Amino acid sequence: MRLDPRDRGLAYGDGVFETLRITAAGEAPLWPRHLARLQAGLQALGIPAPAPSCLQGALASAIGALAGRQGVVKMTVTRGVGGRGYLPPSRVTPTLFVQHGDLPQWSRVQREQGIELGVCQTVLHPDLLAGYKHLNRLPQVQARREVARYGWDEGLLLSPRQQPLEATSMNLFVRFEDHWWTPDLARAGAGVAGVMRDVLQEKLVAQGMQVCSDLRPLSQLRHAEALFLCNSVVGVLPVRKLAQWHWPVTAELAALQAQAEQLFHQ
Amino acid sequence: MRLDPRDRGLAYGDGVFETLRITAAGEAPLWPRHLARLQAGLQALGIPAPAPSCLQGALASAIGALAGRQGVVKMTVTRGVGGRGYLPPSRVTPTLFVQHGDLPQWSRVQREQGIELGVCQTVLHPDLLAGYKHLNRLPQVQARREVARYGWDEGLLLSPRQQPLEATSMNLFVRFEDHWWTPDLARAGAGVAGVMRDVLQEKLVAQGMQVCSDLRPLSQLRHAEALFLCNSVVGVLPVRKLAQWHWPVTAELAALQAQAEQLFHQ
Repeated sequence: MRLDPRDRGLAYGDGVFETLRITAAGEAPLWPRHLARLQAGLQALGIPAPAPSCLQGALASAIGALAGRQGVVKMTVTRGVGGRGYLPPSRVTPTLFVQHGDLPQWSRVQREQGIELGVCQTVLHPDLLAGYKHLNRLPQVQARREVARYGWDEGLLLSPRQQPLEATSMNLFVRFEDHWWTPDLARAGAGVAGVMRDVLQEKLVAQGMQVCSDLRPLSQLRHAEALFLCNSVVGVLPVRKLAQWHWPVTAELAALQAQAEQLFHQ
Repeated sequence: MRLDPRDRGLAYGDGVFETLRITAAGEAPLWPRHLARLQAGLQALGIPAPAPSCLQGALASAIGALAGRQGVVKMTVTRGVGGRGYLPPSRVTPTLFVQHGDLPQWSRVQREQGIELGVCQTVLHPDLLAGYKHLNRLPQVQARREVARYGWDEGLLLSPRQQPLEATSMNLFVRFEDHWWTPDLARAGAGVAGVMRDVLQEKLVAQGMQVCSDLRPLSQLRHAEALFLCNSVVGVLPVRKLAQWHWPVTAELAALQAQAEQLFHQ
């Protein structure tokens, strides 16, 4: 498929996307959550959502193209072509397309011993469309360029007030003495509310853990006992190092990682 | 021309654009300024700029397609296809494409008697790539939807601190008793530094006027004697009304409008 260069997805980033992990059995276990976020994003943008059956059909076709391999499917919906400048057309025909690809390559060592995280200079400013996975992703691109420049594995994005918010493509969880913590992205008005973040938050709560969500200064990480990043493709990725701090991959963290992975091997 | 759906311009808004007004003689009088902003934006994003001769060739071809009509040419440069997620590929092949179209339709009445401006609820947050004309334009799309919803002609975007910054696709100039004022977008870290804004600022200064650029609260507009919006396609558009305030189209403003228009009739 080729795209009309007048598509508003290209002109303004006027659309949303989802990246789903597909199992070897050809299933997308977190599809209902991805679908819900996709629909919420489209509603926030005032783009009519394609019928769920239509989205499901597109997903099935991309899964078919993976031919029994594990992989990812990326689904994009834009406002389509038209309008006068920034003004959307009165009748919108959204563009829907799917792409498929391999799982991102994180090594066994990185998954088992943890990755090195750096603090990006790129700041995550509040965003009126925070939480949604829209196509305006230049802050993430700029931050990811910093990660490459400094040779980190991933980069931590802070708020203008120096509060950790998330990594370029993953959410953050931190273990403190008697609770887990994940940044309150809704209150920050920034970041992407990750599907895996929700899943893990629910899992931790179901296991009797306290999960706090608020905004804390970067310096609080010196009291952390363990850190991990997560997203719906990679699952759980322990962090072993950030600036002068080092953390172990605790048994609790390894167990959580295994649980996340188990979602895709049922 | 059709576009690869994997283009990073679509995936992340990873690129920049310029919209140029073309005269009936097939000229783009402000091309050097547009070219400079395009190159500066590409540099900020770390995208290698196509050679000026290449950009000029694309421009000439789009002008040719206008076949002697006045119109606009839109030039877009993206980082092209590739990379791993947000990470740009190590070797970038930018995508360049041009589109042409008619001049936007502002009526003679709107141009002579002024337009009605509304204050958008969409706030313009600071942006690390402020000033550049990148492809992350969802705030402008959302603001433009407000303009349509309320039946205004254009919408004024404020900073989080309620300071006027710019309209959805135009910059703002305000006449106070003894000087002109235009918001200091660099200090706000937000907005697009318009080509026509630069031209008019230089013209006013050359005519002995004082042009102040700083940040002021919205309430200061109650002391304004005249207001106008501008961009490099429409030129100067007087504002006759904003909320409870009304302004005349002064002789000075009409003269400035004529001077801006003259740029495209030489």
